[in-house]
Amino acid sequence: MTELPVPEDVLKAAHRIRGCIEQTSIFTCKSLNDLSGAELFFKCENLQKTGSFKFRGASNALQILAEQGLPRAVATHSSGNHGAALAKAAADRGVEAQIVMPNNAPKVKQEAVQAYDGIITHCEPTLDARESTLKKILKKLEAEEIPPYNDSRIISGQGTAALELCNEIPDLDFVVTPVGGGGLLSGTALALQTEWPQIRLVGAEPLNADDAKRSLDAGRLIPATRTDTIADGLRTSLGSLTFPLIQKYVETILTVSEEPIISATRLIWQRMKMVVEPSGAVPLAVVLNHSDIFEGKRIGVIASGGNYDPGIR
Amino acid sequence: MTELPVPEDVLKAAHRIRGCIEQTSIFTCKSLNDLSGAELFFKCENLQKTGSFKFRGASNALQILAEQGLPRAVATHSSGNHGAALAKAAADRGVEAQIVMPNNAPKVKQEAVQAYDGIITHCEPTLDARESTLKKILKKLEAEEIPPYNDSRIISGQGTAALELCNEIPDLDFVVTPVGGGGLLSGTALALQTEWPQIRLVGAEPLNADDAKRSLDAGRLIPATRTDTIADGLRTSLGSLTFPLIQKYVETILTVSEEPIISATRLIWQRMKMVVEPSGAVPLAVVLNHSDIFEGKRIGVIASGGNYDPGIR
Repeated sequence: MTELPVPEDVLKAAHRIRGCIEQTSIFTCKSLNDLSGAELFFKCENLQKTGSFKFRGASNALQILAEQGLPRAVATHSSGNHGAALAKAAADRGVEAQIVMPNNAPKVKQEAVQAYDGIITHCEPTLDARESTLKKILKKLEAEEIPPYNDSRIISGQGTAALELCNEIPDLDFVVTPVGGGGLLSGTALALQTEWPQIRLVGAEPLNADDAKRSLDAGRLIPATRTDTIADGLRTSLGSLTFPLIQKYVETILTVSEEPIISATRLIWQRMKMVVEPSGAVPLAVVLNHSDIFEGKRIGVIASGGNYDPGIR
Repeated sequence: MTELPVPEDVLKAAHRIRGCIEQTSIFTCKSLNDLSGAELFFKCENLQKTGSFKFRGASNALQILAEQGLPRAVATHSSGNHGAALAKAAADRGVEAQIVMPNNAPKVKQEAVQAYDGIITHCEPTLDARESTLKKILKKLEAEEIPPYNDSRIISGQGTAALELCNEIPDLDFVVTPVGGGGLLSGTALALQTEWPQIRLVGAEPLNADDAKRSLDAGRLIPATRTDTIADGLRTSLGSLTFPLIQKYVETILTVSEEPIISATRLIWQRMKMVVEPSGAVPLAVVLNHSDIFEGKRIGVIASGGNYDPGIR
């Protein structure tokens, strides 16, 4: 769906997917509050079904399709969490899910797609190969494409995490979300517009995949040229729908280098005893790296996912 | 304290430490229920203050001391969680904590002791060196010794985790706890005797440090001869207080080899998005390895701690 979503769409999505998704916990951690000098509220989407917020958008898209008459199959290309989320949202409704995955996608994410009966087609790890492989599948199977972020159904669904966060903790100064393709960030922007426009919204982006920052600075879409970040969920670039929403509503994008991302990931593991993937720790990394902005503030942090396979010795 | 504790002591401990400890959450996980064919209730002591159940026993000991008049210092030897727990319980009351640690203790556990202002004295990694180093410190500082498990105050404190578990989920068929020195297992045994003597209690022990199993079989204390297990919290041997309590109340000790322990640890990380240390995953490993005993049952699993530093790539 290619029209620009509006705040009302997030409220509708929340109503639509209430029965399918997990209303995830919001955790605090005294030791991380002490370390940051701020008060942090972690919206734990690592505890969402399929291990990431992506299940919200996928559920919203499938539920809209269900109202219109379900297709035989849905399809997407995804290196990770959107693939697993779509596979489960489809399987829950008896719909086949075809997932095109680059052949270098993390093993844990391939296994997740398979665990939900998604059918994987491997391709070379380039955007061209992903799109042409997907196009063939869409044509052959008459499948409905469900894109990972540049889709109004997906954006509206992702925004429901922030709705829950702000309904539970309404007096936040900031919300900080990771930004990759911008589905979560733009959905969160719409969610805040419904009732909390005074909350300042910040996108947290790896310096090594900083297309959102550069696009906002330039006032036009500039796709990522390098994407060598450990935050594998954030290697994608903004799209034609997510970019204008982010331009309109987001206060700023703050970037952070690899070392603080790794350190923030480990801090959450060690201090909160909670497995987040590096992408989900980028907001904490940004908060810890910008104490000038965040000190003394009440900050909602969207811990976007937990699909990571830590090493054991 | 060297007299044998009784069930009533666990109730007293629970009352005494109520204000100091975390009443930890009990989590379930559909995917691990499916995998085990049982219904598992994880008592999450990895979320306890200092990251393990050890804070319960240490708090009970310090609170008893506080009622009698606090010493200037407390001391123990510990390779891990008891050291950090004692350091915090002491620091919370303005008492100095002296911790003798073998020089091969995991770095994350040494840092934890220091984070709570515990004073570390390193020694060679042998029981002789640990005991003689501790003896010197006790004499020099007139410190009160708080042993890691063979102490009635400690045993009673550790039992309070099971009290909370069974008060919240009273109709369990089994409780499974890890067994190292036996403080948690014997304390849990006393806790079950207060109101739930029908619940079957199983100790879960690494095959590579199976002194509890061999001691029960032989009817006398047989210290561990090998302790090469990844479950570093379970390398200790039963003591003169924990052994008779375990003999009297525990149905059986089940052992499990290293591979299933590693696999169970990763399963909890991946499926529950929760960091447990390998020792805390030994009960799940035992449940998964003995489906003949546990299938179809309701099982309380004490996830004893979360002080592990997983690798990131």
